[in-house]
Amino acid sequence: MLPKVTLICLQSLDGFLARTQTDDLSWGSPEDKKHFKTKVQSTGAMIIGRNTFDQMGTKLFNSQFVLVLTSQVENYTELKTPNRHFFNGTPLEALKYLESIEITEVVLGGGGNINNQFLASNLVDEIFITIGAKIFGEGIKVFGEKPLGNNLELLSLEKLGKDDFLIHYKVQK
Amino acid sequence: MLPKVTLICLQSLDGFLARTQTDDLSWGSPEDKKHFKTKVQSTGAMIIGRNTFDQMGTKLFNSQFVLVLTSQVENYTELKTPNRHFFNGTPLEALKYLESIEITEVVLGGGGNINNQFLASNLVDEIFITIGAKIFGEGIKVFGEKPLGNNLELLSLEKLGKDDFLIHYKVQK
Repeated sequence: MLPKVTLICLQSLDGFLARTQTDDLSWGSPEDKKHFKTKVQSTGAMIIGRNTFDQMGTKLFNSQFVLVLTSQVENYTELKTPNRHFFNGTPLEALKYLESIEITEVVLGGGGNINNQFLASNLVDEIFITIGAKIFGEGIKVFGEKPLGNNLELLSLEKLGKDDFLIHYKVQK
Repeated sequence: MLPKVTLICLQSLDGFLARTQTDDLSWGSPEDKKHFKTKVQSTGAMIIGRNTFDQMGTKLFNSQFVLVLTSQVENYTELKTPNRHFFNGTPLEALKYLESIEITEVVLGGGGNINNQFLASNLVDEIFITIGAKIFGEGIKVFGEKPLGNNLELLSLEKLGKDDFLIHYKVQK
């Protein structure tokens, strides 16, 4: 069975994870950072894209298994560790690889383009999304730039910090 | 004093009010439609853009005062009524006009471009936004396409229908 995929992200009210590709991705509240860290640690494995890795690679918790999706695996051979694997393939191929090493659940940690590919392939089971109390107007979209048609089921709604809150959705399949 | 402006809208989780310019704008739950209608009726006045009027004009509650923002006022002379005014001007000029006819509060009802202009001019006091349980990936953005930098204060969070919910924000000025 493929691992259960839980997409976790922070967005502005209008759906942006940042204003620009090089912006700080952790502009959320301390409560949001704690939620993210706790969820990743309890899940034990994470998938991210190369851009996200390049930006926050050294900040990633080393005790978790991290799969970095990239078409340029050869550029990352020196950064490979027992817990950090660079993988060139589709979302389905990535999940099949994780299944082959007996990983049963994984956090999908962005960026937008990677989130879009997994949603378009209908491979996301649940979403935890934090809505920060900001409007950016333009920027990097949490779910990428290509058309999607996912329907969601609201599982829960929880206030986090003073002005942000966390939504937990199941993705209809 | 300028009228108090309350922006009310429905968006997909990723910040779109519709997939295309001609889509149905009322894809929300019956509970969301009821909330919108109640809020507009209790406020008594609404500002919308020409595109939104063209699309839902005949559906608008006739008992409310509606100001339609358009640079082509001359095309709408036959549609003018005592309760429906076509106005060519900036957001500030529109609010000054409403003030001159003793309107003290108004709902801002979109579309995205009009919402963007009011937010960019820092003329929105509160926002009621309903988040529908859908991801569109692309479409017409609720707050338009130009950069914004509004910070919000979360006033309340309320479940509406089975899978959607309503957020009430104050806009920091």
